[in-house]
Amino acid sequence: MKPIQVGLLGIGTVGSGTFNVLQRNQEEIRRRAGRGIQITMVADLDVARARAVVGEGVAVVSDAREVIANPDIDIVIELIGGYGIAKALVMEAISAGKHVVTANKALLAVHGTEIFAAASARGVIVAFEAAVAGGIPIIKALREGLSANHIEWIAGIINGTTNFILSEMRDKGLDFEVVLKEAQRLGYAEADPTFDIEGVDAAHKATIMSAIAFGIPVQFDKAHVEGITKLSATDIRYAEQLGYRIKLLGITKRAPKGIELRVHPSLVPAKRLLANVEGAMNAVVVHGDAVGTTLYYGKGAGSEPTASAVIADLVDVTRLHTADPHHRVPHLAFQPDAMSDLPVLPMSEVVTSYYLRMRVADEAGVLAKVTGVLALNGISIDAVLQREADEVGGEGATSTDLIILTHDTREGTMDKVLAELQALPTVLSPIVRIRKEELR
Amino acid sequence: MKPIQVGLLGIGTVGSGTFNVLQRNQEEIRRRAGRGIQITMVADLDVARARAVVGEGVAVVSDAREVIANPDIDIVIELIGGYGIAKALVMEAISAGKHVVTANKALLAVHGTEIFAAASARGVIVAFEAAVAGGIPIIKALREGLSANHIEWIAGIINGTTNFILSEMRDKGLDFEVVLKEAQRLGYAEADPTFDIEGVDAAHKATIMSAIAFGIPVQFDKAHVEGITKLSATDIRYAEQLGYRIKLLGITKRAPKGIELRVHPSLVPAKRLLANVEGAMNAVVVHGDAVGTTLYYGKGAGSEPTASAVIADLVDVTRLHTADPHHRVPHLAFQPDAMSDLPVLPMSEVVTSYYLRMRVADEAGVLAKVTGVLALNGISIDAVLQREADEVGGEGATSTDLIILTHDTREGTMDKVLAELQALPTVLSPIVRIRKEELR
Repeated sequence: MKPIQVGLLGIGTVGSGTFNVLQRNQEEIRRRAGRGIQITMVADLDVARARAVVGEGVAVVSDAREVIANPDIDIVIELIGGYGIAKALVMEAISAGKHVVTANKALLAVHGTEIFAAASARGVIVAFEAAVAGGIPIIKALREGLSANHIEWIAGIINGTTNFILSEMRDKGLDFEVVLKEAQRLGYAEADPTFDIEGVDAAHKATIMSAIAFGIPVQFDKAHVEGITKLSATDIRYAEQLGYRIKLLGITKRAPKGIELRVHPSLVPAKRLLANVEGAMNAVVVHGDAVGTTLYYGKGAGSEPTASAVIADLVDVTRLHTADPHHRVPHLAFQPDAMSDLPVLPMSEVVTSYYLRMRVADEAGVLAKVTGVLALNGISIDAVLQREADEVGGEGATSTDLIILTHDTREGTMDKVLAELQALPTVLSPIVRIRKEELR
Repeated sequence: MKPIQVGLLGIGTVGSGTFNVLQRNQEEIRRRAGRGIQITMVADLDVARARAVVGEGVAVVSDAREVIANPDIDIVIELIGGYGIAKALVMEAISAGKHVVTANKALLAVHGTEIFAAASARGVIVAFEAAVAGGIPIIKALREGLSANHIEWIAGIINGTTNFILSEMRDKGLDFEVVLKEAQRLGYAEADPTFDIEGVDAAHKATIMSAIAFGIPVQFDKAHVEGITKLSATDIRYAEQLGYRIKLLGITKRAPKGIELRVHPSLVPAKRLLANVEGAMNAVVVHGDAVGTTLYYGKGAGSEPTASAVIADLVDVTRLHTADPHHRVPHLAFQPDAMSDLPVLPMSEVVTSYYLRMRVADEAGVLAKVTGVLALNGISIDAVLQREADEVGGEGATSTDLIILTHDTREGTMDKVLAELQALPTVLSPIVRIRKEELR
């Protein structure tokens, strides 16, 4: 059988990796897929750069629409990124009856419903293993490997840039701004790192996982998104003393009234494997009712790790492109007519536990007052760390740090409690609140 | 569409779990699979026990052949285990045109070639996710998720019983025999634990993974199989002092002249995630040329975790059973006509590094003599730990423990070196040799 022909839109880091791995391992991939897989046409605005990567023998054009219009192309890989032109091209490729492989998490988290509906109507596959956690086959694990399970929660380190920064902050006791500059210098953070450090990238990925795990539509606009820019080395150190590490987690969870979907820094017990995922690595923990806790670890970004996922999708599409659609795995794991209308909960309805740090006056009765407010609101305390005044402020200090770990409570309740505590005259500075996940 | 009908052979721990999870999550599974999946017939010698599990409304028979002969049954689950009757029944089910789902690692590691050939000839699927690492979808990750990769090595903790025993030995400083009794009392080890503690179960699983990773036939008879019965608490303690933990690993690795396939205790750097997999949990590390290092963690045994894998296979088969065989994933990842004839290497050809412990006379020149033998054989030393004589033997002691970590060398060379060292008059007791894997 002649090789399946693939058109590639955008040949930057991941595109080059995809081309190179497909070339290098072509024989082995053919032995698996039962058919050769070849990139025969590439579109990139920078034609010279594209040509430098692919050499002769591959058509290189600047207009992506030429690739989509080419009747010989069976599969289109979209690696342009973003919501703009990428969306138009993906929709056009679907209309043209091409199968699509994409690593574009932003596009799918925001426009996935429209895209998957169009693909189903046209009978084509939109595959997106590379959109979440790079080379880790987490989409496949969730959609297929754990299909027996009532999935209860997912918590993942799904942004390598922020995990690198947090690892360095902890290792070296440095503050965020310093480490960010270092990360940019080393190429772990982009010149404009906003999407990473503000949690947006992780939220795109968490949104996609929430849809697949719970059979709900992608709803990025309902996600709570919080980054790591306000984290201080102080809190990382206190967390460590209490037996925790701080990680930026993407969390999605089944709650009695709906689905939690949130990205924010979290304390994680230091003894959990997830807490020990360091540097730019990614890991996703999935808890299902039958399987219990499982974890998937690997490189979440980079040229060849992401290419690994793109090509795995190519192999799947090669295998199934001529099959009846009912032989294929549904895009979002559940059949399109069997989706759930469970709502994504507002953050005030989320139930979790907390780390609180406040600067308090070093006088009798402060702890009693603070814990009294918590108790009145039904919040029980897991641990308290009160530093001796002289440890923190030097001789003659009249204030000290009070750190409290709480048990589970509603975020809405905690918001109210924090306002009450903040109003106490003995609480001297803004209270730091970081969520805590036991991941049991 | 009417539900797909499943016959279950053997309803013990995993069978009961499979029945219960299918019942409990039937609606969610139907929403994923696009079709209901029902166990409608069960065969077990203990009809009363089977009836107690399944209740009314499910046919219960004592003769497995009645299930296979039932024309309404589309898929047969084999959970009898072992090589004997299970093999005959799987072959008969295939002949009868039934798809088969099995958790039987022993059967596939020994007779897989024959079974998969028969299934391919008859056009049916034999699915076996549950055969390796219980609920962890490692077969799917290897066969599909990493299909872009030239896989370089796999190292896994794939036997929960032995990992539980090793964790307890380290935690409590106890010796093997003591912990084994404890494990038996707690139900983590069977009354006859031979298959687990001698490494046979892990070798079955490693054999299956070697076939899928490298496209070679299953060759259990070529595997090097070594258990944990000779490990002492002393070596676990010394390893810890050197920054390592001892795990029973199943390893399969691509080497220049062939494939390594071996199960034995190994030192693993304590900072690796794999070294921190404790208790009865399993984890598999897979290193591919494109993706780099990935890790998959979860419960490797037990009723519902294993059922999770069995049911994932049922969903896959439900989706693909009427598809053309070329739409299906090949049993051993590679197309049957594209297998490799790379040999499994004899243990003497394996290249790895070593931990050596020997009791030596406490006199000048001993270390020079020992390291001289290593150097003459081209083995370089990574670390040496020599205890003060009085630390080990008390006052007046005339001997001491010498521990050496080596760099990589051929096992055949190490065998020769050990014989030389053992012959030295200053080496006073049998040398302990444990392999060491850096897992980089």
